[in-house]
Amino acid sequence: MRVGIARERLRGERRVAATPETVTQLTALGLGVLVEAGAGTESGHSDTSYTDAGATVVPLLTPGDVEIFCHVRPLTPEFAGTLRPGTVTLGLASPASELATVAALAASGVTAFALELVPRISRAQSMDALTSQSLVSGYRVVLEAAIRFPRFFPLYMTAAGTIPPARVLVLGAGVAGLQAIATAKRLGARVSAYDVRPASADEVTSMGGTFVNLDLDAVEGAGGYARELSEDRAVRQRELLAPYVAAADVMITTAAIPGRAAPLLVTHDMVTAMRPGSVVIDLAAETGGNVEGVLTGQDTQVPTSAGDGFVTLVGMQDAPSTMPADASRLFAKNVANLLALMTADGAVTPDFTDEVVAGACLTHDGTIRHEPTAAAVAAAVTGEN
Amino acid sequence: MRVGIARERLRGERRVAATPETVTQLTALGLGVLVEAGAGTESGHSDTSYTDAGATVVPLLTPGDVEIFCHVRPLTPEFAGTLRPGTVTLGLASPASELATVAALAASGVTAFALELVPRISRAQSMDALTSQSLVSGYRVVLEAAIRFPRFFPLYMTAAGTIPPARVLVLGAGVAGLQAIATAKRLGARVSAYDVRPASADEVTSMGGTFVNLDLDAVEGAGGYARELSEDRAVRQRELLAPYVAAADVMITTAAIPGRAAPLLVTHDMVTAMRPGSVVIDLAAETGGNVEGVLTGQDTQVPTSAGDGFVTLVGMQDAPSTMPADASRLFAKNVANLLALMTADGAVTPDFTDEVVAGACLTHDGTIRHEPTAAAVAAAVTGEN
Repeated sequence: MRVGIARERLRGERRVAATPETVTQLTALGLGVLVEAGAGTESGHSDTSYTDAGATVVPLLTPGDVEIFCHVRPLTPEFAGTLRPGTVTLGLASPASELATVAALAASGVTAFALELVPRISRAQSMDALTSQSLVSGYRVVLEAAIRFPRFFPLYMTAAGTIPPARVLVLGAGVAGLQAIATAKRLGARVSAYDVRPASADEVTSMGGTFVNLDLDAVEGAGGYARELSEDRAVRQRELLAPYVAAADVMITTAAIPGRAAPLLVTHDMVTAMRPGSVVIDLAAETGGNVEGVLTGQDTQVPTSAGDGFVTLVGMQDAPSTMPADASRLFAKNVANLLALMTADGAVTPDFTDEVVAGACLTHDGTIRHEPTAAAVAAAVTGEN
Repeated sequence: MRVGIARERLRGERRVAATPETVTQLTALGLGVLVEAGAGTESGHSDTSYTDAGATVVPLLTPGDVEIFCHVRPLTPEFAGTLRPGTVTLGLASPASELATVAALAASGVTAFALELVPRISRAQSMDALTSQSLVSGYRVVLEAAIRFPRFFPLYMTAAGTIPPARVLVLGAGVAGLQAIATAKRLGARVSAYDVRPASADEVTSMGGTFVNLDLDAVEGAGGYARELSEDRAVRQRELLAPYVAAADVMITTAAIPGRAAPLLVTHDMVTAMRPGSVVIDLAAETGGNVEGVLTGQDTQVPTSAGDGFVTLVGMQDAPSTMPADASRLFAKNVANLLALMTADGAVTPDFTDEVVAGACLTHDGTIRHEPTAAAVAAAVTGEN
């Protein structure tokens, strides 16, 4: 069977779903690999490097060329509509928001796997793209903060006086938040962090951060993810966070709720209470933002309430794509590992009795297998009528 | 006596020669301080913060307002020509290149102190602006590299495989180079460094770097600075460096020779032999560059010789000004400390029997006191006739 790797079409997307390293892995499984010309350029992989690894480079990859189609970003409904029945697709699918694509995949009879749905069990860690890409985002967001911050992160004791370390506050201590804590700590900052999940306190501490303990009830949803707060508790949370925000030089927000808009953690007034020169990076900008007024893909200079300067508010966009080489290295491995789990004797044959395969499957044989998505698609269709 | 702090006029210069902290220090010495409106804005200091510290903020600072004039960038010949005899100036003066200004300062009867000429003795460390600003540049240059590098700096061992650390090569191990080594190391890179001065090997090692030992004779000039190599030895040095450059993911060049153009350490061919995605940052771009083809203030995408991608070549400009808050904090302390050395009973009265005062003095009483500069100005005048 043949696996196709397309050049990503979305503007700003620089990753690729296979590297020469994973091409070698896939061909060793007996699969043929077709790579669209230029697919790896932004990640540092020339067409020649794919050919050398055993792939066939084609000028344009069409759905008829392959039985398995690997991608980074969710497919468009139009493209999904052109896929042949029985085609296997594998990549990010944003099932909660890309309902039209999900419906088209089901209608086309495609067996679609969404990397977002890979169960968070230890056997599936090597296929967990949310984790691998959050590692990139969490590291990157600290560099983005440091490059905009008019001061040092580390403490320096110099002949001309002592420079205190930057105070970094991280909100949301998932994979990206923990990685942000670790990276800011590496750079020498004094780091504190907050998460609604009390279980994250130990993780924050182990990364070198100080856990901010607010006097709020614990909130933890299924699978270790955060779940939504009631509005009055969200207000109380913001009130309790305000003094920590005001004391921070750099704030990084990473709070996400799967399938929902990002929670509003920081109001405009909380930002304006910060000192001039402070930097706020909102990693959740693309899903609505943790910070009021954030604009995706843009820096905003927010005047301080004291009138003595500005806070730089950054709406991060496409964070993993800013480091396409290592982001693709990990993503491609996630894809190849999931594919390897389903491949025997050169053929991809998903075994739905396997909890990872079953969990990651979004559509199969004309139906939407992921129940919350099926319900959302049904609701959307009803709403339209 | 009154000290004047002007808003810097040079485009791209964001530092200021006094902070509210040093205003307090200067007023405690009995000096009056006049600050031009907006002088500290880019460094995060409002006019109000200067007033609160005891300064008088004036809309426009004119030479007649003050007896002492502190600045960051070298003055223009025009401005120097307007200063009254006996005025004391204090700031960076670039005496080797700004000959017209030096001549104008002498002609105006100004007592000018150049921070570049502060002797490198331990008593004068707190006045050493070259060192304090190089600390900023050395830290900053690593952030500039990391933000352009498509991979991580640190080693990561993840479920989807191990990511090796970035290999960073630093050429020139002065204050900026050592700080670059330390910062790259903090971020988790594997760092090696080279300097023509063998004495720097221990310093490189103490910062966590591996010293690159080339089979070249040692070269060390006066005061611990590097001096120029003969052309055939410079060629040999480049040949010996080539394999280290080719193996690096990130190269940072910081080699400077006081009063001279920066030495050419890396040829175009050495850059094109690097891997695609590699990043080269030339901190010496403003003085001619250590890397062939570098453009000051610009990123250049240099095609690799293998044709598989590009190396990003960055000509750093105004590095300390990219972090104006902490750069100004240190610079202003250097200025205030030198001024304090010359101040008694509210009056600035330079004591030329003090080795620091005498060493830092560029012009006084109508003459150019720094002999190499006096010779250069005389040669320039002769050349013009």
